[in-house]
Amino acid sequence: MASSEAKPSRTAVTLKTPKGTRDWNGADMLLRDEVFKTITDVFKRHGGTPLDTPVFELKEILAGKYGEDSRLMYDLEDQGGELCSLRFDLTVPFARWLAMNSIQQVKRYQLAKVYRRDQPAIARGRLREFHQCDFDIAGVYDPMIPDAETLRIIVEVFDALDLGITIKLNHRKILDGMFAVAGVPADKIRSISSAVDKLDKMAWPEVKKEMVEEKGLTEEVADRIGEYVRHSGTVAEVVELLRANERLCVNEDIKAGLDDMALLASYLKALDVMHKITFDLSLARGLDYYTGLIYEVINQPPPKTDGEKKNKKDDAATQVGSMAAGGRYDNLVGMYGKRTIPCVGVSFGVDRIFTILKARREREKVSKSPSIDVYVMAFGGKDFDGLLPERMDVARRLWSAGIRADFSAKVKPKLPQQFKAAEDAPLGVILGQDELADGKVRLKVLGQVGDKGEAEKDRGDLVRLDDLVGEVKKLLA
Amino acid sequence: MASSEAKPSRTAVTLKTPKGTRDWNGADMLLRDEVFKTITDVFKRHGGTPLDTPVFELKEILAGKYGEDSRLMYDLEDQGGELCSLRFDLTVPFARWLAMNSIQQVKRYQLAKVYRRDQPAIARGRLREFHQCDFDIAGVYDPMIPDAETLRIIVEVFDALDLGITIKLNHRKILDGMFAVAGVPADKIRSISSAVDKLDKMAWPEVKKEMVEEKGLTEEVADRIGEYVRHSGTVAEVVELLRANERLCVNEDIKAGLDDMALLASYLKALDVMHKITFDLSLARGLDYYTGLIYEVINQPPPKTDGEKKNKKDDAATQVGSMAAGGRYDNLVGMYGKRTIPCVGVSFGVDRIFTILKARREREKVSKSPSIDVYVMAFGGKDFDGLLPERMDVARRLWSAGIRADFSAKVKPKLPQQFKAAEDAPLGVILGQDELADGKVRLKVLGQVGDKGEAEKDRGDLVRLDDLVGEVKKLLA
Repeated sequence: MASSEAKPSRTAVTLKTPKGTRDWNGADMLLRDEVFKTITDVFKRHGGTPLDTPVFELKEILAGKYGEDSRLMYDLEDQGGELCSLRFDLTVPFARWLAMNSIQQVKRYQLAKVYRRDQPAIARGRLREFHQCDFDIAGVYDPMIPDAETLRIIVEVFDALDLGITIKLNHRKILDGMFAVAGVPADKIRSISSAVDKLDKMAWPEVKKEMVEEKGLTEEVADRIGEYVRHSGTVAEVVELLRANERLCVNEDIKAGLDDMALLASYLKALDVMHKITFDLSLARGLDYYTGLIYEVINQPPPKTDGEKKNKKDDAATQVGSMAAGGRYDNLVGMYGKRTIPCVGVSFGVDRIFTILKARREREKVSKSPSIDVYVMAFGGKDFDGLLPERMDVARRLWSAGIRADFSAKVKPKLPQQFKAAEDAPLGVILGQDELADGKVRLKVLGQVGDKGEAEKDRGDLVRLDDLVGEVKKLLA
Repeated sequence: MASSEAKPSRTAVTLKTPKGTRDWNGADMLLRDEVFKTITDVFKRHGGTPLDTPVFELKEILAGKYGEDSRLMYDLEDQGGELCSLRFDLTVPFARWLAMNSIQQVKRYQLAKVYRRDQPAIARGRLREFHQCDFDIAGVYDPMIPDAETLRIIVEVFDALDLGITIKLNHRKILDGMFAVAGVPADKIRSISSAVDKLDKMAWPEVKKEMVEEKGLTEEVADRIGEYVRHSGTVAEVVELLRANERLCVNEDIKAGLDDMALLASYLKALDVMHKITFDLSLARGLDYYTGLIYEVINQPPPKTDGEKKNKKDDAATQVGSMAAGGRYDNLVGMYGKRTIPCVGVSFGVDRIFTILKARREREKVSKSPSIDVYVMAFGGKDFDGLLPERMDVARRLWSAGIRADFSAKVKPKLPQQFKAAEDAPLGVILGQDELADGKVRLKVLGQVGDKGEAEKDRGDLVRLDDLVGEVKKLLA
């Protein structure tokens, strides 16, 4: 039931979900909600407060926030009144909410669907309607402290999900400083940054071609960028490398960025997350609004051998892309109101995480949990009338006690059909005319699939109707 | 923060949510999620399985399902590709899902937002983006058994929410039979039904005027309808009344409807829900797809005196309208596929329920629960450096143990500021240079608001850092 699928139909309606969307139900839905709960628990542990915003926003609120990606926005038809678009992420609605309510300081989280008219690849967890789980810290604090906590949250989430990761870090100021030193004109920096962001999907010659042919850089400037951004390593290594470069280390932006990174490193050590971190100068992030630290999480546990490293990286990168990403955006809220509220946050890509966990579950063949606790059956001889009101009465007693119960919606159900319907329930209650006359029913622990014949012979223990709820609770405990 | 509100802004962007939408956060969000959980628990108790569908559907899937209300649908702009609309309810997407996946039998529930371009009245809980919580039973069963279970679910939900209600019942076959006997032409029955549905908001003369002037009935036919639909009472009373009417009781539709109602009454007795039921012949429901039993829940506990009755009814009806509604729709799934799957279900109007519960909470002044468990502070003399890495280390230990913790994001926070930030936390951990040198910290139960001066003097009990998590857990338990 995963993807949109066409089938013939009587009324010639195409029976499918819209392109890039899917239904969620059954084991998929349960697993997805488990992921939500795991992530939310971490958010709450860090004092997060929940927010929910409308699925669409005024078009002017979203305008000019997403750079080249804006073309992927879903617009609502103009039916008179306001012009609106479906939300593209949860960050801009959060900034709108902060500005609208003049909130100075908050840790908020939001779990919701966002919408992008991108080319879908459902098997890889890339959809047009997909989930984001965001945690953001807004407010004026001392430098890099909220940034460090956000990275700690990322580590806690993936630890809780039991997924190995690497967090790639970079800093917009360092990146912009490198572009400036390389000779990129100020008005081209954002668009060149977008090009660099494609380096995890495209090879350098292609990216260079885009910079030169589409964006008008000289070969020389492009080559200098190519040289700068190819470095990655531990935070200490890359900081040292940049500080040793005479042309780069004199740039004010780069200096400020390096100070941030060194301070961050000391906090990441106290928070025990350094072992998950790589400082990667090629990380750029597509969105316009980032102003400081940026990061992206890839599904790549620390490599054991060099050979393995190459394979693992390719595998994970092509399969699902980044599983979480974020950064600092200090000017976004100021675009809406009088006050600038600095913010830093992270967005978890639940659909990609789901895709990986589902594959793992399928390998491990996790069995599904029962959807009810008790199935109420009836049984009788020639004059059997089905005992429907009596079955209803027993189900009502169980429901009133908070116990999950069901019974056949037939007036006179056959016993084998009832046992079949009861297959997923751990307990069965069996009603018979004679026992009921005594105020009693039979309570039976239902066996595994396979001994159905046996199950139908053994009708369980006699229990007084008034004691049934207590006995059921004992058996379920 | 409830409604959309305009404020002046630097960039001349109107800082608001779109008309008829709102943000949810803080106490409102917690209360809303409590309502969701209460309802979901009941759904699970009845063996319900969750479903989630996309927020928009293909336009052709939704077309022709909602009668006159279709004009309220939100359409997505044609940006190339498929034409889509935001979902209008959860019933049609459910029917599409059943048909698309050839599902014969299921009890499914869905909690989601739906969209109608109606005139909003936010204070009364009427919005353009609003929540529905639906439970539906699909499949071929013996008559009225799933219908009775659905009504039982309604009673359990409102019992769990501690809200007094009345469930108004009617039957489409009886209604259509009455229209036929009154002389309404077959092709006008659905549109006359829509007019009758307005009787809970409009007086009879207005509804009659609509029937005669807009919908072309004769005065005589309209008056006959007016006479038939004014009856209500217990199921037994109304069944008897209709069976005693010579013109009505010979109509085949009415006969079949009355048989259903009599059978239903016997099941409702076994399920102990009869005391919440009124059979109301004026209930019509606007939507086209109902084919049998229909119902609507109003916020009106059984009246104690005649005088009170009148007041309560007006109050509840004008304040929030119906809090839940539903019915049987046996032909909807068949409109999409080869098979007809009979269905019955109920939809809870969470926003209206929320509005009532919020007013109650405000009367009862329920205090809010803390968002963290432990606040980590530091304190020192002249050379105090803020102990930030140490506070981070302690917070990390608490987070790793699943404890909700926070600390000041300042390098050198002042003690009074820290105590203020700790106000909502039940516990405080206080770090000092000397105690840390001994491997110890102070753990303190934070007092009520008002004894802050006192709180700052008493610095709590000395605890070994390695025992901290255990001691905190003991105090929180």
